[in-house]
Amino acid sequence: MQKIKVGIVGGTGYTGVELLRLLAVHPQVELVAITSRGEAGMPVADMFPSLRGYVSLPFVDPAQVDLGQCDVVFFATPNGVAMQQTRALLDKGVRVIDLAADFRIQDIAVWEKWYGMTHACPDLVSEAVYGLPEQNRAQIRGARLIANPGCYPTAVQLGFMPLLEAGVIDSAYLIADTKSGVSGAGRKAEVHSLFAEAGDNFKAYGVAGHRHLPEISQGLARMHGDAVGLTFVPHLTPLIRGIHATLYARLTGQVDLQALFEARYADERFVDVLPKGMHPETRSVRGSNQCRIAVHQPQGGDTVVVLSVIDNLVKGAAGQAVQNMNIMFDLDESSGLNVVPLLP
Amino acid sequence: MQKIKVGIVGGTGYTGVELLRLLAVHPQVELVAITSRGEAGMPVADMFPSLRGYVSLPFVDPAQVDLGQCDVVFFATPNGVAMQQTRALLDKGVRVIDLAADFRIQDIAVWEKWYGMTHACPDLVSEAVYGLPEQNRAQIRGARLIANPGCYPTAVQLGFMPLLEAGVIDSAYLIADTKSGVSGAGRKAEVHSLFAEAGDNFKAYGVAGHRHLPEISQGLARMHGDAVGLTFVPHLTPLIRGIHATLYARLTGQVDLQALFEARYADERFVDVLPKGMHPETRSVRGSNQCRIAVHQPQGGDTVVVLSVIDNLVKGAAGQAVQNMNIMFDLDESSGLNVVPLLP
Amino acid sequence: MQKIKVGIVGGTGYTGVELLRLLAVHPQVELVAITSRGEAGMPVADMFPSLRGYVSLPFVDPAQVDLGQCDVVFFATPNGVAMQQTRALLDKGVRVIDLAADFRIQDIAVWEKWYGMTHACPDLVSEAVYGLPEQNRAQIRGARLIANPGCYPTAVQLGFMPLLEAGVIDSAYLIADTKSGVSGAGRKAEVHSLFAEAGDNFKAYGVAGHRHLPEISQGLARMHGDAVGLTFVPHLTPLIRGIHATLYARLTGQVDLQALFEARYADERFVDVLPKGMHPETRSVRGSNQCRIAVHQPQGGDTVVVLSVIDNLVKGAAGQAVQNMNIMFDLDESSGLNVVPLLP
Amino acid sequence: MQKIKVGIVGGTGYTGVELLRLLAVHPQVELVAITSRGEAGMPVADMFPSLRGYVSLPFVDPAQVDLGQCDVVFFATPNGVAMQQTRALLDKGVRVIDLAADFRIQDIAVWEKWYGMTHACPDLVSEAVYGLPEQNRAQIRGARLIANPGCYPTAVQLGFMPLLEAGVIDSAYLIADTKSGVSGAGRKAEVHSLFAEAGDNFKAYGVAGHRHLPEISQGLARMHGDAVGLTFVPHLTPLIRGIHATLYARLTGQVDLQALFEARYADERFVDVLPKGMHPETRSVRGSNQCRIAVHQPQGGDTVVVLSVIDNLVKGAAGQAVQNMNIMFDLDESSGLNVVPLLP
Repeated sequence: MQKIKVGIVGGTGYTGVELLRLLAVHPQVELVAITSRGEAGMPVADMFPSLRGYVSLPFVDPAQVDLGQCDVVFFATPNGVAMQQTRALLDKGVRVIDLAADFRIQDIAVWEKWYGMTHACPDLVSEAVYGLPEQNRAQIRGARLIANPGCYPTAVQLGFMPLLEAGVIDSAYLIADTKSGVSGAGRKAEVHSLFAEAGDNFKAYGVAGHRHLPEISQGLARMHGDAVGLTFVPHLTPLIRGIHATLYARLTGQVDLQALFEARYADERFVDVLPKGMHPETRSVRGSNQCRIAVHQPQGGDTVVVLSVIDNLVKGAAGQAVQNMNIMFDLDESSGLNVVPLLP
Repeated sequence: MQKIKVGIVGGTGYTGVELLRLLAVHPQVELVAITSRGEAGMPVADMFPSLRGYVSLPFVDPAQVDLGQCDVVFFATPNGVAMQQTRALLDKGVRVIDLAADFRIQDIAVWEKWYGMTHACPDLVSEAVYGLPEQNRAQIRGARLIANPGCYPTAVQLGFMPLLEAGVIDSAYLIADTKSGVSGAGRKAEVHSLFAEAGDNFKAYGVAGHRHLPEISQGLARMHGDAVGLTFVPHLTPLIRGIHATLYARLTGQVDLQALFEARYADERFVDVLPKGMHPETRSVRGSNQCRIAVHQPQGGDTVVVLSVIDNLVKGAAGQAVQNMNIMFDLDESSGLNVVPLLP
Repeated sequence: MQKIKVGIVGGTGYTGVELLRLLAVHPQVELVAITSRGEAGMPVADMFPSLRGYVSLPFVDPAQVDLGQCDVVFFATPNGVAMQQTRALLDKGVRVIDLAADFRIQDIAVWEKWYGMTHACPDLVSEAVYGLPEQNRAQIRGARLIANPGCYPTAVQLGFMPLLEAGVIDSAYLIADTKSGVSGAGRKAEVHSLFAEAGDNFKAYGVAGHRHLPEISQGLARMHGDAVGLTFVPHLTPLIRGIHATLYARLTGQVDLQALFEARYADERFVDVLPKGMHPETRSVRGSNQCRIAVHQPQGGDTVVVLSVIDNLVKGAAGQAVQNMNIMFDLDESSGLNVVPLLP
Repeated sequence: MQKIKVGIVGGTGYTGVELLRLLAVHPQVELVAITSRGEAGMPVADMFPSLRGYVSLPFVDPAQVDLGQCDVVFFATPNGVAMQQTRALLDKGVRVIDLAADFRIQDIAVWEKWYGMTHACPDLVSEAVYGLPEQNRAQIRGARLIANPGCYPTAVQLGFMPLLEAGVIDSAYLIADTKSGVSGAGRKAEVHSLFAEAGDNFKAYGVAGHRHLPEISQGLARMHGDAVGLTFVPHLTPLIRGIHATLYARLTGQVDLQALFEARYADERFVDVLPKGMHPETRSVRGSNQCRIAVHQPQGGDTVVVLSVIDNLVKGAAGQAVQNMNIMFDLDESSGLNVVPLLP
């Protein structure tokens, strides 16, 4: 079988190097080009020595390469880049998977408010498929353009999905208390992400409003069939990788929660419902595309607590992007993703 | 002025060494004895070299020392030890501050259920004063016996107190999503507290029920004047010190939350209400007896979010114990506690 | 091709779970049994949820399983266990790879002094092959019994090997300043390995003498052809995985160090000599069987500095054991070890 | 007694906030001004909430304040700033303590080579006293201008000092293998200092040459009375605070090392020689001005190993600066420095 020709735009950040880690050993993929304006000419493995022996390509200037030769291009770029380049690629028959937020929000006005820029191609937003396979597998299969979900949104949506689809909770008062490792902030030189700032420290941030709020709200509304009320509080925790979402909702009736979750995800390769009473830990998915979920009903009351963990760089970014690619190209959905989590 | 003669029972754990850190330079304290059955004879500073030059005493066998000579004895022991020895000390006129849970829960049946033992002196429980100065300063002043609050309970109660006292939230649905550093588990050789287990990892635990739940519920009920409904989910985060409590409740009416909190804690030396819009971080109280609190009302909705941080070993244990001692002995409440947090 | 039947004795420690991580997806391996006296009956994936979906076996009591059916048995046990069981396995035609120290030291008196026990089978020690493939590949190929090297010894020996084989340093004054992550201490409940003890802390230990000293000295002597003088100082650093060895020696003549190292390791799949001037970092090998080495000659003087990093659980333990198995069974040496390091 | 009026130039970095932590509760100090060009007008405690309640001053623009009113000014600025402003201050009778490197190297050509700039006031360099009290206490007492030592240089010089002064080692082959926490890199937004880069990672850097090399060489030469040969290899370790220096040298004769070190430091308040056989750990000095040292002679051979730990921000920067101020102003040398290390 012919390999899929893959291009990566923006390979110097954490989602970029994570895509490379996964794609370098993906049996059906041929890496064609990894672009970087700033590092053009530098061997990728000089910047990321972990890739020595696996990736021999240099970064290439985006102006010097024709990505039209690719079957699929991943954008691992800051918000606002993919929307400038996607149409030209689609026109050449190249499929696009954007790991940033450019195509995630259907309501353009909402997107422009939260991301502070004018959208370059609103029509492509309506074409784009939100790449959460557990929700949209059928549409992903035929898609030209994928909006790969954010990290928090993946963990939160997978946690609330069985409850909202089954209609067993009060959708007006949902709480998502989420904790993220520092790699979620990207490989950007910022004081608040320094080891001496984020290490041995824990804090909430963005309580007044975080960009992932409208993305999550949109997704939950889709499951519920109507708008939901969500309080979303993100926290920064001294992990490198990992997101832990702790979700709270009020039950509106009797339901066997464990059975509900197990049934919903029975056929999902990358969502693992833990046995009753267990608590997932972030390291149990470190380096893997797995989401692990546990559902609790403390003291048998009417508050349900869902615990959902992912590796923010894998199921929350690059791994889910590869999963989407696998679906789009009719490969085994877990191809290249058969990675045992690294513990300890 | 004559110094207060202090004894410490159980000086080899983290609350013990923290008491020593604070008391060794407390201007009105004379350390008389630090007991340890297992380490008797060993200089304290051999076990904790951080105390070299500050503490010259050796650990002494409890059987070899008369704690009746002390003005006050701190119990930094496992649960169930203080209740065996307190009456004898009180009878000799020694005041007692228990950093464990023996005297925290007024309902003996509840205590016995959660702590799995028969209580040795229920009558002393009813005499004991719960040592949360911001709530019970007057009673602490005259007390012989102090039940020093737990770490989670301190952070959670201080966060909910203004809201419950003012009666502005629905007390039936309170949520406390709390995160603790690993020192909260004590200096015990347990696999789950190893660096290679708890490091670079995040998890919830005890969702079905944690010993601090009845203590918090009792305290919140006292503020509310009636029982409250509480969902309490603790998490372990890869910090050494620090607790971050994120509290959620539904407002029952219009209220200026910032003003409410600032007024409630205006005279409290150790509770710092942050300016509107800020988020406290655990390192901002590292090594100090401070609690820092911020109150938010995301998107102007009817859910209030309180962020409350303490150092679990100081305001959550040894520091609050010293604060209680200062009150009991009519010292300046901040004597020996004037420690600037260590940042970074 | 028929798969190799593999047994693991002692699967509850870090080298055990690491063997499982690698062997669970090794294309030519069938896991037959994982023994544990203490956890018999418990599914392996209940103890290590990272293995859910990959390992369905339960731990089995060693008394309840016939390991004679295996082609090879790995001992991931404390020192002193393998030497009790190896002869019976060898007699049944089972090959043995011991990840502990039982067969590493040829001088039995030295072994007994450092490990504090009487050796059960000195004759097997002389048969055992020291499983450092870069040194002993030919003997490993035909071996029945492999003494898998220790973690420090692997990093130190690979760093000194080119220099000693070429005879370009003063072998009487070798210095190995080594730093290890905490997982090197194993999954044992010990106070000094707690997160709150080993976290945010750095210290040397065992300066007066460490068990890996005689193992390293023996290996270096083999390279040099005579005894060497070695000062070995191990340190504990707040990493989970990783060893960094910084080696110092005095050059006895002019030599192109970079060329020497590159030539020595040109054909070695798992030793990567970095370009001149670079510094390897432990995370560049995290989760992989790679050793990365850089050689420096500061200020052009006559002191050579070698920097050598490995993942202590992979090239320093389980990965090297799998590499040895691959060689013993004439598989591709990198089979099952084609794992891209996890960065960040 | 009248308080000493103190100004701080450059208060937004880690040495700045550390000076503030110590000076805010120093009994003989009055903080007059903390300058920052970028943050002028902002309350210091808004940037560093740990100082809330202790420092009420705002940052002030250097152009808006007359530092001539101060008794002493600390420069906690990047290299090259203090040398521009020192003469004017000295002319007004203000004493100056520079925490950067401007006045540390007596050989101007060497300084200009390593620091890449032309020195603004070579004459002041020759006047400046190198502020290592254990070496230069007498000169510090009368000094107008102090060059506060670097962090590595402090730990290394205190470790080698007894050996070099006594002339018992081969000074031609000294090795300093040093490990630093990440706060040593300062509060600068740089990728390599990010939590996701420096966390769970260990590496050497600057093996070819580090700015602290000439400073250390100069200091060791002063002790030895002649030039020494030094190999200096710094490493970055995932700590926030702390330096661990492991020093190696060859003994030239018989000497009681323990007695030598104890005698040398018998009268030094801030150098603690540990009992024979112990290993200092960085956390045992966390937050304090202490240096702890142990001396070993492994296997009784002729290689001496010295272990020396400091908190890089205290004895390696701000604490030593305060110690120098205390000496200059005839205060108790430990005034304001009586801080028990924070453990755990």
